[in-house]
Amino acid sequence: MNTKEKVSIFILSDSVGGTASNVFHAALAQFPNMNYDLKNYPFVRDENHVEVILEKAVEWDAIVLHTFVNPVIVEKIENYCLNHHLSCFDLINPLIREMAKRTNTKPTHRPGAKHQLDDKYFNRISALEFAVKYDDGKDPKGYLEADIIILGISRTSKTPLSIFLANQNYKVANLPLMPEAQIPDEIWQVDSKKIVGLTNDEEMLSNIRKERMISYGMHPDTPYSSKDRIRKEIDYAEKIYKKLNCQIINVVNKSIEETAAIIINSLEG
Amino acid sequence: MNTKEKVSIFILSDSVGGTASNVFHAALAQFPNMNYDLKNYPFVRDENHVEVILEKAVEWDAIVLHTFVNPVIVEKIENYCLNHHLSCFDLINPLIREMAKRTNTKPTHRPGAKHQLDDKYFNRISALEFAVKYDDGKDPKGYLEADIIILGISRTSKTPLSIFLANQNYKVANLPLMPEAQIPDEIWQVDSKKIVGLTNDEEMLSNIRKERMISYGMHPDTPYSSKDRIRKEIDYAEKIYKKLNCQIINVVNKSIEETAAIIINSLEG
Repeated sequence: MNTKEKVSIFILSDSVGGTASNVFHAALAQFPNMNYDLKNYPFVRDENHVEVILEKAVEWDAIVLHTFVNPVIVEKIENYCLNHHLSCFDLINPLIREMAKRTNTKPTHRPGAKHQLDDKYFNRISALEFAVKYDDGKDPKGYLEADIIILGISRTSKTPLSIFLANQNYKVANLPLMPEAQIPDEIWQVDSKKIVGLTNDEEMLSNIRKERMISYGMHPDTPYSSKDRIRKEIDYAEKIYKKLNCQIINVVNKSIEETAAIIINSLEG
Repeated sequence: MNTKEKVSIFILSDSVGGTASNVFHAALAQFPNMNYDLKNYPFVRDENHVEVILEKAVEWDAIVLHTFVNPVIVEKIENYCLNHHLSCFDLINPLIREMAKRTNTKPTHRPGAKHQLDDKYFNRISALEFAVKYDDGKDPKGYLEADIIILGISRTSKTPLSIFLANQNYKVANLPLMPEAQIPDEIWQVDSKKIVGLTNDEEMLSNIRKERMISYGMHPDTPYSSKDRIRKEIDYAEKIYKKLNCQIINVVNKSIEETAAIIINSLEG
């Protein structure tokens, strides 16, 4: 089989299939030119349905990824894949078995247990709502309540970063910095350990802002995207960060997931 | 070891460690009472650092989860865990090897490849910004641009659901429904296949709204949380959904991940 041929991937789950999808995309990133066809089968809960899907998988010579927790279904899949020479990856049960051994307890075998509507879930939902409510400096009251406060000049990815951290159960508010705008008093009342100042490279910011101008149907060369203006904004922001004595992260070439991991690591470290 | 004793989990990654954390939490959900201690080691990129962490893992008798893609580091971990009887789960290389075989190509072995700043990444960032910008009916222009439009009465989880779908690269706008408020004209111009109407059970909504009143420091029994009022709102919303001929989802006892999976499945199915 060469790279032009499509590889079929079947993701089967008794719940959403998020774990398997995550593992698949991490592996896929190692093959930038792979031609693939991904089929998702979420909320599969009975044996007959599993069999119908596996028959199709044989037909397509698919790689099967699954995260079932019902031992009857897991065994059925194992046997079926063995008998039909299907490549099958059970992404969760080896770890579940080790945990059962270590704790000397039995797993609940309850499907969708990761999506339980417990306190942790509702805290995460509240954190997401908090991040949207206190995005973009909308209401300075948020700074006093937040676990993390993100400062940054325009186009340093404050909004998506706030949302990503909220999804990890942190209450996050952000404030755009501009030399012409005032810093709300609340910022100076907050423990500087909670504050993160984002910065970026002049060149990169200029390119991002030019793109933004083009997407608005305007000429790319505006004061907003000029390097002089950006240098002035970066200098201003760095002066504020110094005054606040907060953590500074240069986000150039970093994804929001990477920036978030740095923030969480330094909060918990 | 009994359930009271702590199980140590070490997550090692050359990048953020998100994939391993995801698998761990899916397995953990099967053991609601497990007492554990989770240590994250993101951005580990050299062999000596790996060895220092593995020595600590032996000391703690930890379960090691990793997603390294550098074959030298992977082999080092395998050998070390074998020699020191450490339980080690390589969550990604078995699948990478199968993909390499199928495509007859070599993986790039580039760490953090999942967090590449490519078009897909920037589309996702735009989608997250779109969701925040067009949350809560803030600007009806968003409905004409959106891939998915979420309608629902208060406390049916429109905001977090919009954000979760945005993180899957969909442009999402939402509109709160109230019998007293007008529906923007734009909603009627949109293909009904893009519209999802959320509903919930009377009892559940009343409880959620009472909780909300308490969190605001008010008496729980307000018109907002009364069943009469909620019944009226649900009836109104269902009438609108019927008129629009859109998909209806009752979110009672569903997490946002589950509701999102239903929406994506019906969009793509």
